[in-house]
Amino acid sequence: MTGPHVTGPQEDAAAAPRPFTREDYRARMDRAAGDATAAGLAGLVIAPGPDLEYLCGYRPTAITERLTALVLTAGREPALVVPKLERPDAEKAPGVPGLRLVDWSDGEDPYASAVPLLDAGGRYGVSDSAWAMHLLGLQSALPRSGWTSLTAALPMLRAVKDTDELERLAAAGGAADAAYRRILEVEFAGRRESDVAADLSALLIHYGHSQVDFTVVGSGPNGADPHHEADDRVIRAGDTVVLDFGGLKDGYGSDTTRTVYVGTEVPAEVQEVHDVVRRAQQLAFEAVRPGVECQEIDRVARRVITEAGYGEYFIHRTGHGIGITTHEPPYMVEGERQRLVPGMCFSIEPGIYLPGRFGVRIEDIVTVTDRAGRRFNNTPHELQCVS
Amino acid sequence: MTGPHVTGPQEDAAAAPRPFTREDYRARMDRAAGDATAAGLAGLVIAPGPDLEYLCGYRPTAITERLTALVLTAGREPALVVPKLERPDAEKAPGVPGLRLVDWSDGEDPYASAVPLLDAGGRYGVSDSAWAMHLLGLQSALPRSGWTSLTAALPMLRAVKDTDELERLAAAGGAADAAYRRILEVEFAGRRESDVAADLSALLIHYGHSQVDFTVVGSGPNGADPHHEADDRVIRAGDTVVLDFGGLKDGYGSDTTRTVYVGTEVPAEVQEVHDVVRRAQQLAFEAVRPGVECQEIDRVARRVITEAGYGEYFIHRTGHGIGITTHEPPYMVEGERQRLVPGMCFSIEPGIYLPGRFGVRIEDIVTVTDRAGRRFNNTPHELQCVS
Repeated sequence: MTGPHVTGPQEDAAAAPRPFTREDYRARMDRAAGDATAAGLAGLVIAPGPDLEYLCGYRPTAITERLTALVLTAGREPALVVPKLERPDAEKAPGVPGLRLVDWSDGEDPYASAVPLLDAGGRYGVSDSAWAMHLLGLQSALPRSGWTSLTAALPMLRAVKDTDELERLAAAGGAADAAYRRILEVEFAGRRESDVAADLSALLIHYGHSQVDFTVVGSGPNGADPHHEADDRVIRAGDTVVLDFGGLKDGYGSDTTRTVYVGTEVPAEVQEVHDVVRRAQQLAFEAVRPGVECQEIDRVARRVITEAGYGEYFIHRTGHGIGITTHEPPYMVEGERQRLVPGMCFSIEPGIYLPGRFGVRIEDIVTVTDRAGRRFNNTPHELQCVS
Repeated sequence: MTGPHVTGPQEDAAAAPRPFTREDYRARMDRAAGDATAAGLAGLVIAPGPDLEYLCGYRPTAITERLTALVLTAGREPALVVPKLERPDAEKAPGVPGLRLVDWSDGEDPYASAVPLLDAGGRYGVSDSAWAMHLLGLQSALPRSGWTSLTAALPMLRAVKDTDELERLAAAGGAADAAYRRILEVEFAGRRESDVAADLSALLIHYGHSQVDFTVVGSGPNGADPHHEADDRVIRAGDTVVLDFGGLKDGYGSDTTRTVYVGTEVPAEVQEVHDVVRRAQQLAFEAVRPGVECQEIDRVARRVITEAGYGEYFIHRTGHGIGITTHEPPYMVEGERQRLVPGMCFSIEPGIYLPGRFGVRIEDIVTVTDRAGRRFNNTPHELQCVS
C-alpha cells in the first residue's frame, strides 16, 4: 500500500471532555483581572483570538477591522464591546452570559464606546495579536493611557493549565502519537512530500483532531529548512525525513516531531547527528522542574549540540508553549527568565540543520509536574527506518 | 436531485491571468512610499497580511509573534525585516528579490533590527492588522516616533485597482454568479442550511475559486441575523433564504448576495421587503460615479429603506471594498467622506432584517468607471423562487 488505511480504532468518543462552563470562564476572567492588578495594571483589553476564547469562550466568525474587545478590571463587571451586528453571535458563547455587553453600530466611533470602560490615565495590558489600528484608536481616545503587551505583562495568563486542560493536551498528544505510529507503515520512497503530508493530515483527523495546523514533511535537503512545510519533492531511498505535525483536538493543541530514515542502512553521519539531537532533547527534558528558568531548558539543549560541534546549525529556540494554540508563551529561549511552574506545557524540540543536505529534529510536548517533567508524546526517540 | 452535479463547464483554464512580476511589486512599493510622503509620513511599516502580499507578494506560512515587517521610505531601498528561519521562504516571494533583507534570530531583539531603518522622530503608517505587541515594541524602541493606522493615513493604498486587478475581480464575480445560477437548481426544502452551504462551497471551487471565505445560508428567522453563517436548521417551504457567498479566485475576491423564496406563492410582505431592498440597491448603484463621497452611497440606500418604514431594520453599513481580501477599504458608511475614484471596487449590499422572522439582502460588487458604476455581479435581482 502507499498511503495509510485510515480505518483503525479511533479515540473513544465517550472520552470527550467536559465542556467548559460559564463558571469556568468567570473564574478565568476573575483571575486575569486580579493578575492585572498585581502586575500594576488598571486592567486588560482582550482582542479576538486565543485570549478572548480562553477567557469567555467567544470566537467571532472573522477577526476584522470592527472592534471587539473584552475589558477586564478588578472589582468591576467584565464588559464586552461588540459590533451590534455580531452581538447575537457573541451572546451564544458559553462565557458571555452575565457579561456586560456594550454594542456599537457601523458609523459610530467604536473607541468612544470603550472609553467609559477604561480609566483615562490607566495602564492596560492588550492582547498581543490585537490589531494595531485598534490600539491606535484606543491610544488616541485616551491620550494619557499607557499600554503594554499582554505577554510582556502577564506571561502566565494562559501558560499554567488546570486539570481539565492537561487532560485535553494529553489526549491531543496521544492522538498525534497514534498518527505517527501509523505513518511509519506507509511508503515514503517514490512519493511526494505532499502525499505523506496528506496522510498525516488524514490520520490526525482520524484520531480526533478537529483542525490540522501543520504537517511538515522535510525530506533530504528540505529538512534543513526548519520552516519548510511539504512540497512536490519526491522522497528517495537514503533521505532523512523530518515529520513535524499537529493541530487541535477538543480545542487543545498537539505538536510532535520525529525524524525518520528511508532505507535500512543509516549513514554514520545521519546516525551521529540524530544521536546528538536525541541527547539534547533528553537532557533538556530531564532539566524540567518547577523553578527552573525557561532559558535554562534552551541552554541545556544548546550546550549538547554546541559541544558536539553543531552549534551553528541549531538555528531556532528550543521550544514554545502550547494550549488552545499550538504556539504561545512560555518560550524556551535565551533571555527568558520566567520560571517553570507546575501545569505549564511546552515543546522541547532541538534540531540540527545542515544546509543543502538534511535536517534532524525531535520534539515532544512536556508538562511541568510538582517535581519534574512529563511527556505528552511517547513514541520512540530512536531513529526509525521507513520504506 | 438534492445537491448540484458539480460537473458543468469550468472557467477556461487558458484564461488564467498573467502573474504579477517583481516590477509590478516594485511599482506598488514605490507608489506607496510616495503616497506616504505626500501624506506627511516618514514612511510605512507593513505587516504580514494583505498589505504585505499586495506590496511584495510575500505571504508567510503563519502570522506569529515573530516580527516580519516591510519598511518603505521614499528615496530609500525597501527593507524587509524577517525572522532568520523564515528568510528562505521570504526569498521565494515574487516581489522580494532586490529588497534589502534584515534578519534576526530567536533570542535577539527584533525591534532593534528595525530601528536603523526608521527615523527616531518620524511618523509612520502601520498596517491595520499589525500585531499590537509589534507596534508597542516599535513605540518603545523609538519613543519619539508617531504612528497612525495605514487605512487612516492611506485609505487609497489598495483601493484603486489597475487593469490586471479589475480583470481578476470581474472573473471572480463571474464565477460567483455561475455558482448562484447552479444553486437555484438544487432542493432547498427539507435540507439543512449547512447542506446548501456545502453546495455553494463546492460550486465556488468548481468555478475556479482557490478559497471559500463564507457561505451564508440564512433561512427564515436565521436570515434576520446578518452575520449568521449556516447551521443545522432544516429549510422549509415558505422560508426566505439569504445566500451570501464568496472567496478568492486567482488571488482576488468575490462576494455576492441574493435572497430566494422556497415555494411559489411569495407572501405580500416578503415581496414588499424584497422590493424595497432591491430599489435601495439599484438607486445606490446608480449613485456611483467619480467624486461622490462613499457615505453618499450609504445614504442613498438608507433613505430608500427609511422612507419605506424599515430604517431601524437596516443595521449595517451599505458596503465594503474588495480586492485581495473580501473586506477592505473603502467602506460605504456614514461619515466616510472619501471620494470615489475610477478603479475602486466595493460591495453595495443593503438589507432589511426583521428579528425572529426573516431577512432580505441583495449584494453586488461594483467598480467605479470614468463616469458611473459597473457591476461584477449580473444575476437577476428579482426574487427567485426555489423548490
